[in-house]
Amino acid sequence: EIQFDPTTHPHRRVNPLTGEHVLVSPHRTKRPWLGQTEPPQQANLPEYDPKCYLCPGNTRAGGQQNEKYEHTTVFENDYAAVLPPPGPSAPPAPHPLLTTEPVQGGCDVICFHPRHDLTLARLPVPDIERIIEEWSSIYRKRGGQDGIKYVQIFENKGAMMGCSNPHPHGQVWSLSAVPSLPATELDNLQKYSLSTPPSTAPRGPLGRSCLLCDYVTFEVSVAQAEGRVVLKNEHWVALVPWWAVWPFEIMLLPYKRHIPSIVHLTLEEKTAFAQILSQITIRYDNLFSCSFAYSMGIHQRPVPPTTDAVADDQDEENVAHLHLHFAPPLLRSASVRKFLVGFELMAEPQRDLTPEQAATRLRDLPDVHYLNAPK
Amino acid sequence: EIQFDPTTHPHRRVNPLTGEHVLVSPHRTKRPWLGQTEPPQQANLPEYDPKCYLCPGNTRAGGQQNEKYEHTTVFENDYAAVLPPPGPSAPPAPHPLLTTEPVQGGCDVICFHPRHDLTLARLPVPDIERIIEEWSSIYRKRGGQDGIKYVQIFENKGAMMGCSNPHPHGQVWSLSAVPSLPATELDNLQKYSLSTPPSTAPRGPLGRSCLLCDYVTFEVSVAQAEGRVVLKNEHWVALVPWWAVWPFEIMLLPYKRHIPSIVHLTLEEKTAFAQILSQITIRYDNLFSCSFAYSMGIHQRPVPPTTDAVADDQDEENVAHLHLHFAPPLLRSASVRKFLVGFELMAEPQRDLTPEQAATRLRDLPDVHYLNAPK
Ligand SMILES: O=P(O)(O)O[C@H]1O[C@H](CO)[C@@H](O)[C@H](O)[C@H]1O
Ligand SMILES: O=P(O)(O)O[C@H]1O[C@H](CO)[C@@H](O)[C@H](O)[C@H]1O
Repeated sequence: EIQFDPTTHPHRRVNPLTGEHVLVSPHRTKRPWLGQTEPPQQANLPEYDPKCYLCPGNTRAGGQQNEKYEHTTVFENDYAAVLPPPGPSAPPAPHPLLTTEPVQGGCDVICFHPRHDLTLARLPVPDIERIIEEWSSIYRKRGGQDGIKYVQIFENKGAMMGCSNPHPHGQVWSLSAVPSLPATELDNLQKYSLSTPPSTAPRGPLGRSCLLCDYVTFEVSVAQAEGRVVLKNEHWVALVPWWAVWPFEIMLLPYKRHIPSIVHLTLEEKTAFAQILSQITIRYDNLFSCSFAYSMGIHQRPVPPTTDAVADDQDEENVAHLHLHFAPPLLRSASVRKFLVGFELMAEPQRDLTPEQAATRLRDLPDVHYLNAPK
Repeated sequence: EIQFDPTTHPHRRVNPLTGEHVLVSPHRTKRPWLGQTEPPQQANLPEYDPKCYLCPGNTRAGGQQNEKYEHTTVFENDYAAVLPPPGPSAPPAPHPLLTTEPVQGGCDVICFHPRHDLTLARLPVPDIERIIEEWSSIYRKRGGQDGIKYVQIFENKGAMMGCSNPHPHGQVWSLSAVPSLPATELDNLQKYSLSTPPSTAPRGPLGRSCLLCDYVTFEVSVAQAEGRVVLKNEHWVALVPWWAVWPFEIMLLPYKRHIPSIVHLTLEEKTAFAQILSQITIRYDNLFSCSFAYSMGIHQRPVPPTTDAVADDQDEENVAHLHLHFAPPLLRSASVRKFLVGFELMAEPQRDLTPEQAATRLRDLPDVHYLNAPK
């Protein structure tokens, strides 16, 4: 019988965090591309753009003026997707299938840096540490507000990811409901912890097993040669997960111990976090010598523990394991992306190159940003 | 207390077919758009393009020559995402979380018409009836092959939906596994049929309730004034579902009786299907006076019943209710789309205008194609 070869034979893999499958069709990488290409990115951005609504001192669409910030700054989104409480209560459902759940909360914008022309990939590590501090404090502040059930930190980078302004920034949407995807992930982490006997990997609360601790321990210690690990430092690992959907998708997470949220990080772990964020984004830019577009999201404990919370390892809510997803659309070059359409929207995500091939490509890239490389 | 107003207050709705939520933020429609716009579409296409690999008589990338077809033609995708059996069996999993499921099957391309410059919106109804016949026969043929578990019929239309050729065509991917989304839908249809007492709506097999029969009966008979119904004829209804994610998403389905698949349609139901397909796509084009991009998928019984199948209403597999999803990305004009990124990818789909507002817009459009309208 023929031997199974993951780089030749179409197959499906399961994402244990979501239960979703991905169809891997590695032989399709040979397909020529005759479709839409992405417009070239705006190059040579100015350090300051008088028309940018995020540059220091400028006026925003809503009329407010930005601080003359020197590092980071945070303000409420002028077109927030949710509004602060109180809101009206749910209307009666006209039919049992047509229910309405009112949602309250707040949407923040965080400017990563005063410089209009820089991105994570081009910021010094101490500046990235400041962004991490800002994420932690928004998570604490919003997560401590009455009725907030989840704080979703994310970044849309690049015009092709619907980002309307190249000024480096991210968003935080805090909601009175746990959104679908984190809810599913938490559910699966919980189920796993209750059904899987602990291994030698780090463990979650109550000494129970943790899906991500188990997975990442395997990837780091056993499977590293096989090659889904892109980068690793003292505390964090960046890998193309076994179940990756986007061509160069990355999951970034701490692997040495079970860490429920960003506020559980030690100072050292935060520095290592900033370092690896810098290194990943540099490699991303280097892949196609462009400012690499992506959506990034932080998944963690829905809201931080209150000070009077039970000891960490007794607190079931700590079943969450802090991790970041990077979803970048580019596939072949700075202008050819993967479209998740048709079959993907109607049936199941499909990818061409294997996660192992993607990880190898990323791993082999130089770790100096192409714009800073000696000529 | 304030009254809940769906056009003002952010809220979530649930898709009972998938269990997924959508966050509706209607007040966000006021947001200005400064981001990426879509390139203008190729206009004035020739009736025949000598370089098109789908035009009659032309040679394809793989070297084969197309028939000089006069109505529709079908051939195997030169870069199929799955390959025919036999394939190797599953390799051992290196870790319980890292399983591989080999997939076999076939990918077909179906050209809708010899004319390079026409789309469903501009084809006469009898030509659409021919496409429906072609879908039925591929569904029968592929669905009857050994090991095929699902036949996914879909269309990617428009460059922004990753379609690389404007020549009117669709695809059919037939797989040895039921893909994630149809599997989830079938699961939820099954659960509903077992847990919900039958109403006065049409019923599924074994006299049990059907989620889609119940839903659509409500929309057509009770809620029509409220306005999610876009179009309706003797047998079919097109509506913007309560839980729509895409701005102008449409679900198209038969509402008079429970119909598991395309091969269960009577001649009259097929004609009505062709008519409403024409009418929907005409309205879509008229919305922004452009060739409207979308992904369309047909969900139905995984494969057709074999001739010796038990009587229809005794066959549990008939829990499926034939329906089509249209997922179009445009939001405000021919060049401004909705991006499902950041929050949507990492947390939960979000929409601005309400499904009711979208349906009203679509309903109020002229039913003559803008290119054929008297000046
Ligand atoms: O097969 P096509 O039309 O060349 O390719 C298109 O549709 C496929 C199925 O939806 C997708 O996987 C591809 O990303 C898309 O570009
Ligand atoms: O808020 P922004 O950056 O203007 O808008 C962008 O991000 C949002 C959150 O991911 C999306 O809902 C929008 O579709 C996208 O264009």
